[in-house]
Amino acid sequence: MSHSSQSTSGQVPGKELYESLTALLGEGKVSLAGDVLDTHSIDKWFASHRPDIVVFAESTADVSKVLGFANERKIPVTTRGAGVGYVGGCVPMRGGIVLSTARMNRILEIRTEDGVAIVQPGVITGDLQAAVRQLGWDYPPDPASLKECSIGGNIATNAGGPRCLKYGVTRSYVLGLEVVLADGRVMRCGGSLHKNKTGFDLIGLFVGSEGMLGIVTEITARLIPKPKSRGMLAAVFPDFPTAAKTVQAILQAGHLPSALEVTDAFTLAAARKKLGAEVFPPGDGHLIMEIDGRPAAVASELEELQDLLKSCGAGEIRIAREDAECEKIWQLRREFSYSLRDTGLTKLNEDIVVPRGKLVELVNFARDLEKETGIAVACFGHAGDGNIHTNLMVEDYLDPVIRERADAALDKLFTWVLSHGGAITGEHGVGLAKKPWIRQALGEVSFGVHREIKTTLDPNGILNPGKFLDE
Amino acid sequence: MSHSSQSTSGQVPGKELYESLTALLGEGKVSLAGDVLDTHSIDKWFASHRPDIVVFAESTADVSKVLGFANERKIPVTTRGAGVGYVGGCVPMRGGIVLSTARMNRILEIRTEDGVAIVQPGVITGDLQAAVRQLGWDYPPDPASLKECSIGGNIATNAGGPRCLKYGVTRSYVLGLEVVLADGRVMRCGGSLHKNKTGFDLIGLFVGSEGMLGIVTEITARLIPKPKSRGMLAAVFPDFPTAAKTVQAILQAGHLPSALEVTDAFTLAAARKKLGAEVFPPGDGHLIMEIDGRPAAVASELEELQDLLKSCGAGEIRIAREDAECEKIWQLRREFSYSLRDTGLTKLNEDIVVPRGKLVELVNFARDLEKETGIAVACFGHAGDGNIHTNLMVEDYLDPVIRERADAALDKLFTWVLSHGGAITGEHGVGLAKKPWIRQALGEVSFGVHREIKTTLDPNGILNPGKFLDE
Repeated sequence: MSHSSQSTSGQVPGKELYESLTALLGEGKVSLAGDVLDTHSIDKWFASHRPDIVVFAESTADVSKVLGFANERKIPVTTRGAGVGYVGGCVPMRGGIVLSTARMNRILEIRTEDGVAIVQPGVITGDLQAAVRQLGWDYPPDPASLKECSIGGNIATNAGGPRCLKYGVTRSYVLGLEVVLADGRVMRCGGSLHKNKTGFDLIGLFVGSEGMLGIVTEITARLIPKPKSRGMLAAVFPDFPTAAKTVQAILQAGHLPSALEVTDAFTLAAARKKLGAEVFPPGDGHLIMEIDGRPAAVASELEELQDLLKSCGAGEIRIAREDAECEKIWQLRREFSYSLRDTGLTKLNEDIVVPRGKLVELVNFARDLEKETGIAVACFGHAGDGNIHTNLMVEDYLDPVIRERADAALDKLFTWVLSHGGAITGEHGVGLAKKPWIRQALGEVSFGVHREIKTTLDPNGILNPGKFLDE
Repeated sequence: MSHSSQSTSGQVPGKELYESLTALLGEGKVSLAGDVLDTHSIDKWFASHRPDIVVFAESTADVSKVLGFANERKIPVTTRGAGVGYVGGCVPMRGGIVLSTARMNRILEIRTEDGVAIVQPGVITGDLQAAVRQLGWDYPPDPASLKECSIGGNIATNAGGPRCLKYGVTRSYVLGLEVVLADGRVMRCGGSLHKNKTGFDLIGLFVGSEGMLGIVTEITARLIPKPKSRGMLAAVFPDFPTAAKTVQAILQAGHLPSALEVTDAFTLAAARKKLGAEVFPPGDGHLIMEIDGRPAAVASELEELQDLLKSCGAGEIRIAREDAECEKIWQLRREFSYSLRDTGLTKLNEDIVVPRGKLVELVNFARDLEKETGIAVACFGHAGDGNIHTNLMVEDYLDPVIRERADAALDKLFTWVLSHGGAITGEHGVGLAKKPWIRQALGEVSFGVHREIKTTLDPNGILNPGKFLDE
């Protein structure tokens, strides 16, 4: 089964599409402009493919009309949120229509008495977070890109972030969805309800479906009371295994930090080069942890954790008791990314996951891979989840020779990860970047069930074709 | 579409089934004994239907063989865990095979370094909880029946419990599944990974699917570090609206109790009658809350909550700082159920959900319904989730006249709930009890999608036929 044969990209000329869609939706919602098509050809990954046309939907009715139209004519429709994905998920590989939800960016309602916010998919995640925090509530998911990514995109990839250790991923904060199905039918699932066992979990099916099963047009998000206080600790360790052992000691002692981030020697070296050696005292492993809760609880837990870190062999320990100090530590965490960027190399950021007990094995493997391939590998990320961003540092991924070498190294990495009970993606999604390994990752039975479900919900294969279920 | 025509119950005689299945599985796994068939005809609800035969599967291979056999012959297969469901979900309405997972009751592995337990579906939930707590870890889902229900049944209904307010339902604790599909294929999803975005969320699709999409044969459960301490408060309020307002005040003040339970006047009156008036000082509303965390945190939060309860108009406040005292308060909570039972009436326990802000409206409606129908209505339950067990107290539900009146009252209740943005089931599932209202609850589009998915995964309609997607 391949949906590629069903693509009509190029068969319906852009101009005809423009006229039909304008007639359907009204003026000002459709564009053929070259720069618009270019912007909508890419995300943050390396793939690029031009759509035939871009539609800026402004309502559920718009989305429904576009899908009804496209389904009848078998025109590919690729949904786009803020376009900041890391795996090429919103690149319209078969042309056709890019449906942008950027204009559907209203926070419709925040009801703290029900613990919910109702939003359109184009709302920027950070804007929702800021709005609910002003009311003393919280929307916990915190992908690194939260100032520019949209809730719709977060739903497409079931986005994570550092605080997922305690708070869970995007799925845990979606109570209700309005979804337009491939044929234009509008379906509602769930609502402003914190528990709901009405039928199958269709919300779960659409969250993380990468635009391949339907288009989400409204989200009812779960809010929680915002913890009144937070605190952080950052510590340098002599080596990575000691840092990883400390991760285990923290959890075994009954702590559940909201975030627990680890960094390897390569990344620390890059950070020292950028920021100065004095910022990170000697040591080849680094841990950051955040805790939150009632003020008295945070204060006493910071002391407990400090003692625990010392007993685990930490060198310098930095403690942040106030918001501003915490932000400084998070800024340090962000510097790890910037420092890698400053090496001048291209960072292939792979969001692999291993069982939490295999962190040391993973980093040892990364060192071996480095020796074997000559490609530097930098590891840092969400230690508590076993979700370690493993960055292959290459010169220019668009250079075919370098790309071939890099892909061979990625293949070794993913093969190792899968043979050690891991996953090829923890929070970025499959998209195009992980497509070559998805069958191996899912296994044949699951891959088959994926295709069966896809065919059931999108029989003409118009939704985001060319991605991980297609040849 | 109806699967009923596909049932062959009665077409293949029991004896022939017995011989074929024994040849397939070996001796000692199949039963035609009258008492075994009787036991496997019911759960805790009112429906009863005899299977033709009962199979006690002992392995994934057994389950796979039975499904391959049954699918080819279009014989109904109804999976049964511990049989303590509240909605008739495991009653074999079309006869055929009851496949019991009771013998698949081993905890295969607990790996605290990975934060996981790997278990078979027949494991009793309370046994898993006890085993991991001994290691200082926790499996938080706590359905009231945890001492007798099985993990497999919890997955079938995505079971909840009081502590879901803070910790989430069963779905939040399933990291991996082995599922046997209707045709006998064995599928694995997820693993010992705390984050995973490999493909669609098939785990979510099977959790809560009430035995209609596949049979779960192995579960990788997520564990969390067990909070070191807990504490509870119980308080009487002059009336229900004041208690409900206090629920709002607690959350708005930034507390997130692990449990937050409310009780109405009717239930309190029954409890006073059973336990003596001195146990509950005068007042028509009652709140119980549990908090957990680091010892210092729990101690200071108990003080904060006590002050808050007083300022909200609480009468007597009881505080439990130690485990044994906490258990006494939970025992009180359980007495609410027993007290209602002691009225001599049959309790139709409906696990409806309303938006949290509508608790008072719900209880006011319950009072009106009582007046209108003459059927007493007792409300208590998970206030934080808006998941209030609304108990219609009837004389004998099996008496057709009484049942007709009760069903008419239930119809009024569910219609009101749905028109107020609520759900007809929060944690028990649909089964047979909620079947008459499922179409209305889901809406036509979602109901249609449910059927499409069911047909895709179970084209012969052999899995738990006669339930909420069938006529």
